[in-house]
Amino acid sequence: MANPTAAMLVIGDEILSGRTQDTNTGFLAGKLTGIGVALREVRVVGDEQQDIVDAVNALRHRYTYVFTSGGIGPTHDDITADAIAAAFGVPIDVREDARAILATNYRNPGLELNEARLRMARIPDGASLIDNPVSKAPGFRIGNVHVMAGVPAVFHVMVESILPTLTGGQPVQSVTVRFDMPEGAFAGQLAEIAKRNPDLSYGSYPYVRDGVFGSNVVVRGTDKARLEQARLELEAIAAGPAPSG
Amino acid sequence: MANPTAAMLVIGDEILSGRTQDTNTGFLAGKLTGIGVALREVRVVGDEQQDIVDAVNALRHRYTYVFTSGGIGPTHDDITADAIAAAFGVPIDVREDARAILATNYRNPGLELNEARLRMARIPDGASLIDNPVSKAPGFRIGNVHVMAGVPAVFHVMVESILPTLTGGQPVQSVTVRFDMPEGAFAGQLAEIAKRNPDLSYGSYPYVRDGVFGSNVVVRGTDKARLEQARLELEAIAAGPAPSG
Repeated sequence: MANPTAAMLVIGDEILSGRTQDTNTGFLAGKLTGIGVALREVRVVGDEQQDIVDAVNALRHRYTYVFTSGGIGPTHDDITADAIAAAFGVPIDVREDARAILATNYRNPGLELNEARLRMARIPDGASLIDNPVSKAPGFRIGNVHVMAGVPAVFHVMVESILPTLTGGQPVQSVTVRFDMPEGAFAGQLAEIAKRNPDLSYGSYPYVRDGVFGSNVVVRGTDKARLEQARLELEAIAAGPAPSG
Repeated sequence: MANPTAAMLVIGDEILSGRTQDTNTGFLAGKLTGIGVALREVRVVGDEQQDIVDAVNALRHRYTYVFTSGGIGPTHDDITADAIAAAFGVPIDVREDARAILATNYRNPGLELNEARLRMARIPDGASLIDNPVSKAPGFRIGNVHVMAGVPAVFHVMVESILPTLTGGQPVQSVTVRFDMPEGAFAGQLAEIAKRNPDLSYGSYPYVRDGVFGSNVVVRGTDKARLEQARLELEAIAAGPAPSG
């Protein structure tokens, strides 16, 4: 049976401007791989309602799970919750359970639960909350869409808290064999090997270091013994002289 | 007049598995910002022809420019060129000018231009080549789509070589003011300021460091004097005591 699939939607002008490097996708990808959920697509859009709505609706119908990152804070450019409500065609308003959670964080009179902060208690109808032990303001899940914070420290704890709620598949494992030669030297053999082993997935990820070309060949699969066979076969090629054909 | 727009399409299973962190998008984003082209969307898809075709066709009709990264090497999982040809509905085959360029790199008999390497000379009909001084194998441009390598060192030189061919807009500049307080403390004032200055774009990018909450407020615009006014206004708020309302 094929593993469940997932898409990640990163929301925020700061990623598109190049100001901030998105690292949430890599974090999520590693976690999903570990539970046998296949991340199949990532999109990054800016803080524009229609762009978010279009992306969410394209992804949620196509994949088992969708995860979003960013735009759920108290400032005017935090429009994710409203966009998600629009995507699902449901109302959104301040919800009492979310307000109560926020209130626990704002007992300090210098940090009152003002109008801006109350924006973080706006939750689309029908959503369930995602816990945020770092800064209280919750994320939420609606349908198969999990809406989480963009700040990596908060995103990470939210991902950890939802992982047990996801239905995973067979965890995909991998072995990596480094080839100290240009891809072109072994690409023909690798293609044959990949064809002979359709239960495994072979990828070649080239690099240039100090002007020297090489590649990491990664084999992915769910059967450890088969992966070890694949590793031995590749290591023999990697160790030998570069074939001339 | 609105600035030209762009989308980036990152192609490769290694990004989706979390094995490799994509940095090409950030590099491109910074370069585009510098010439006044607005990166509006990013997608990451795996090494699946239909996924690449769908993404390219969705993006190329929507944005002024599309840039792709990855999947143009010699191995069996390098399917970008064929997918681009399919997206445009044009034939693809080994092209003589591309083969000639590759041949200059494979004069060394140990590095002959074998069948695998010849894959890198497969260019969709109607495309023009993008120079690759690092490892010769060219990228190509077809329509408004620029197809480039995934290896960052190669991607970078390809971007540099195509930048002069793009029609830019007014370069967007930015100022950043750091707020050593949680976003909720200034979000109300920031929303008013953003409303009063519709020619500028205000974004708040929160962080948590050692358990302390703060935010970088970034203002973007094309008029340097206006940005300086905005900086002074924000600095006054950032320096003052956290407002209670």
